[in-house]
Amino acid sequence: MKVKITEVGPRDGLQNEKSVFSIAQRKTLINDLLKAGVKHLEPGAFVSPVWVPRMAGSDKLHKQLSKSVFSKYKNIRATYLVPNAIGMQTAIDSGVKDVAIFASSTEAFAQRNTNCSIKESFERMTEVVNMAKQNKIKVRGYLSTVFGCPYEGKVSESKVLKVAEKMFDFGVYELSFGDTIGVANPKQVRSLTKKIQALIPNEKIVMHFHDTRGMALANILASLDCGVKNFDSSIGGLGGCPYAEGATGNVATEDVVNMLHQMGVKTGLDLEQLVKTTRKLEKSMGRALPSKLSKIKLS
Amino acid sequence: MKVKITEVGPRDGLQNEKSVFSIAQRKTLINDLLKAGVKHLEPGAFVSPVWVPRMAGSDKLHKQLSKSVFSKYKNIRATYLVPNAIGMQTAIDSGVKDVAIFASSTEAFAQRNTNCSIKESFERMTEVVNMAKQNKIKVRGYLSTVFGCPYEGKVSESKVLKVAEKMFDFGVYELSFGDTIGVANPKQVRSLTKKIQALIPNEKIVMHFHDTRGMALANILASLDCGVKNFDSSIGGLGGCPYAEGATGNVATEDVVNMLHQMGVKTGLDLEQLVKTTRKLEKSMGRALPSKLSKIKLS
Repeated sequence: MKVKITEVGPRDGLQNEKSVFSIAQRKTLINDLLKAGVKHLEPGAFVSPVWVPRMAGSDKLHKQLSKSVFSKYKNIRATYLVPNAIGMQTAIDSGVKDVAIFASSTEAFAQRNTNCSIKESFERMTEVVNMAKQNKIKVRGYLSTVFGCPYEGKVSESKVLKVAEKMFDFGVYELSFGDTIGVANPKQVRSLTKKIQALIPNEKIVMHFHDTRGMALANILASLDCGVKNFDSSIGGLGGCPYAEGATGNVATEDVVNMLHQMGVKTGLDLEQLVKTTRKLEKSMGRALPSKLSKIKLS
Repeated sequence: MKVKITEVGPRDGLQNEKSVFSIAQRKTLINDLLKAGVKHLEPGAFVSPVWVPRMAGSDKLHKQLSKSVFSKYKNIRATYLVPNAIGMQTAIDSGVKDVAIFASSTEAFAQRNTNCSIKESFERMTEVVNMAKQNKIKVRGYLSTVFGCPYEGKVSESKVLKVAEKMFDFGVYELSFGDTIGVANPKQVRSLTKKIQALIPNEKIVMHFHDTRGMALANILASLDCGVKNFDSSIGGLGGCPYAEGATGNVATEDVVNMLHQMGVKTGLDLEQLVKTTRKLEKSMGRALPSKLSKIKLS
């Protein structure tokens, strides 16, 4: 069995870190990840540097990566997050071939995160998707607050399925279901996953878990049991949790990969090189990351 | 569905902590745990204070607990670890009614941990068990390095089953299978659990996971799926990992309880009171414990 991991550390991770990474440092991190066998990654985002300062210069980054980094590897899928037509135009101008659009499962999160209603976010996405089609750019989708919302609490499955179906109708090649606040539990994951699988082809379903309550690997196990084969994760667990100081956010790539490899599931990733990358990050950031594997001797 | 949690923080946890807890502090911790609904716990051990200084005075502790703490609650099961006849005699003299004996699944760990072979450890345990029978003391069993050994690496299932069967023949009321170095993965847990269940009645099987590689909750989920209903855990994740500085040891009770409650599984424990206990510990120890729940606002 093989599982596809999409590395979101350089985007979803770094955008929530206090440490500021220069474009050169982001490039080095991505280079290290590619060395570890990463094929699918989010190098950055075309968002306003006023709102998301950590992602500033993603256009320059992409140009540098295209010129001297991606060319060394085969079949790299580099996906950039775009929130609107302005971001999409920059992506097009930068020669990007793969973008991610995103929606919220709840109105309150849509308002706080994108300053508009879910309905308005779909209008924005329609514009972005049309531009993508005209420019033969592939589109990935993200759905946030799928298992719980920091403002609304519990989220009904029917609400998630409704937004998911609309997102899927955009023709996204993958749809990533995000547990934004790390609140999902395995029973809930099994229940919702089965319903999503009735709606969307399994190979297009991605699970994106946060480890805020330590349940990310249990939730990945629950998804695997249902047949899910795509997961997002962040090197070292980069990103933290914007809703609780000191808490864990994205599940650490190396911890996911270790569990999968131990279970005999292939990922194509080099665990030792991933851990080296995290230890290098920890050194440059001057603090320990949530990664469990980086704390122990690899056997 | 209901699951039984045995709280091992005051023994398995504290014995591996750098912080020294006075008898009064250990008593306060146990009092806090009982307030949270804990019914099954390890308050201490009757071991040589030269080898395990953190457990010194467990006889005094038990006398104080019996006098003024346990009497406030119903059906408390307080189990003390005893390694040999000397420890057992102290337990008897202290009025203890429940003890735990322990064996290793591997020769190398038996030698390093108990300074004797597995065979010799069974001779020691025979003495202890005979003394227990004569004094109508109940006996619980621990089996360590079940899923991997820090010295021998992989451990064969047949080796574990052989030692488990011998332990079970002592008439232990429960046998706890310990992932001493936190190396178990869910696939391995499912495979071994099914074989254990063919050998030992399910209600007597306990799983004892460490979170060193972040897989403890996934392994608990895998055990639950097999029907296991007894787990050991440590408040806050007290204990650390003696084999890797800075790494996690025992899975945190509150993180286990949170996952179970979220899945609709009852534990009889009060999550809020557990988290309060961990935060109090963190304050008195002057450092963060591995607990995930203690870092976030409880909803």
